[in-house]
Amino acid sequence: MTATLIDGKAIAARMVEEVRADAAALAERGWAPRLVSISVGDVAAAELYVRNQQKSAEAAGLQFEARNYPAEISLEQLTGVLMGLNADPRVNGIIIQRPLPAHIPVKTLQKAIHPLKDVEGMHPASIGNIVYNDLALGPCTAVAAVEILKTLPLNIQGLDVCVIGHSEIVGKPIAFLMMGLGATVTVCHHMTRQVAVHSRAADAVFVAVGKPGLVTGEMLKPGAALIDIGINRITDADGKGRTVGDADFDSCSKVAGWITPVPGGVGPVTVATLLKNAVLATRMQMDHYSAAFAVER
Amino acid sequence: MTATLIDGKAIAARMVEEVRADAAALAERGWAPRLVSISVGDVAAAELYVRNQQKSAEAAGLQFEARNYPAEISLEQLTGVLMGLNADPRVNGIIIQRPLPAHIPVKTLQKAIHPLKDVEGMHPASIGNIVYNDLALGPCTAVAAVEILKTLPLNIQGLDVCVIGHSEIVGKPIAFLMMGLGATVTVCHHMTRQVAVHSRAADAVFVAVGKPGLVTGEMLKPGAALIDIGINRITDADGKGRTVGDADFDSCSKVAGWITPVPGGVGPVTVATLLKNAVLATRMQMDHYSAAFAVER
Repeated sequence: MTATLIDGKAIAARMVEEVRADAAALAERGWAPRLVSISVGDVAAAELYVRNQQKSAEAAGLQFEARNYPAEISLEQLTGVLMGLNADPRVNGIIIQRPLPAHIPVKTLQKAIHPLKDVEGMHPASIGNIVYNDLALGPCTAVAAVEILKTLPLNIQGLDVCVIGHSEIVGKPIAFLMMGLGATVTVCHHMTRQVAVHSRAADAVFVAVGKPGLVTGEMLKPGAALIDIGINRITDADGKGRTVGDADFDSCSKVAGWITPVPGGVGPVTVATLLKNAVLATRMQMDHYSAAFAVER
Repeated sequence: MTATLIDGKAIAARMVEEVRADAAALAERGWAPRLVSISVGDVAAAELYVRNQQKSAEAAGLQFEARNYPAEISLEQLTGVLMGLNADPRVNGIIIQRPLPAHIPVKTLQKAIHPLKDVEGMHPASIGNIVYNDLALGPCTAVAAVEILKTLPLNIQGLDVCVIGHSEIVGKPIAFLMMGLGATVTVCHHMTRQVAVHSRAADAVFVAVGKPGLVTGEMLKPGAALIDIGINRITDADGKGRTVGDADFDSCSKVAGWITPVPGGVGPVTVATLLKNAVLATRMQMDHYSAAFAVER
């Protein structure tokens, strides 16, 4: 292995320290950040995830309320719940946990969240603000991947970047964020004729597809940075389960200059980004209220 | 010249025919589309532009009201005007004419327009909806450029596309629109190290920078489509003024397979796209009202 391993946990820990300080400063001004998590139905996997999220939030000094609604709740009822949370100044961020029952379309809920409380960065207006290069709440995974790249000693202006995967909440936002930073970005996907032609020309490769082994060492330029966003459960020959990314780690780590491990790479930074968004959202709401209720204009 | 000249006027004429039929159908249901244009101050150039817009709209059967406010109007007053137009069901589209006085930031006004009346496709939510691949009102110039490409006998799925220029309202939206159609897209800009490396590999090149002669024939793959979005006024050696695009037409037309002229290429299709957006916006508003006031659910 020649690549330097990127330590996602260490990056996340630094971000959480900043969040803790920011949250304390906001609390002093009467704006202690508070998140509300919404899950629907009885989903064991989601529960574990929510519990971990709650632990991370509370460790960073954020309040976290986990709400679970019965699987039979209607879309209208749930939208009503969101409207109540939107209006409540003591709620600063709303998280919609997946999976949701089939009769609850996740996009409809995301659009119902007030953009200033959209800590997951999924509202169309949040995405549009990123395109506009405004300070805004970005989709956590995409923001985390870009934050990781920013820790490397690379000049992002003019950097040739290849994004593999063009999902709305990961691949595309990474592309605009990197464009906003001055990179030259190519976005590849399942219809791209020859992904390797593009990835091999890139100084940094982001991959977010969900296919173990999709990126191999021969698809990389020697010394390139590889940010692996995939999270896949595979079963080894001995029958044991294991979590891997979208990169074939063995061959990629021989060619890349830097590589993120899975787990321990983008994952922890994504959680830290959610917390950072919570603090950012709280500050935006505080400013919004101050402006709305200012005595002098 | 070996390239086929793309006739923007003919494409626009076909679009306007569709708009006229759609507008007539909407009018029959009590929803005759109506646009309101807002200009601020005494801007002769904008006036001519507005007059032409009005002529095009009325020729397509759309109502068009041109409002001009004094240069001294405050941002608060103008925002109030927009709120009134947002609430008025007889107004289906709002156009903000540029330039605006320095104390009126255009982005603030764009955000104040209700997304369903955003016929220019500039609201962050409109941009975000395009990223989400939802049917939405897109920025007219970007949509027009893509509509032109769609008229060519090219399979867009897997097509290698190079977008030169990464502005929020042209370059970036073209990139997502093309990604949404299945193209592999690279976005180049002023920080890109070697634009020609990317443009020469592309089956289709969009250029929207505002620099005459930026793209030359040797930057193109033989047979590629070149969509020139630039509009530049230059003065010839004999002192006469002339409008040109961003491409060096002489050299590009010898290499490209298809090329848009300037003027007569993207320009007329952009105007037709605004009218198409007006009809689309009116239909979305009609559906929105029907859903909100439906007796049965």
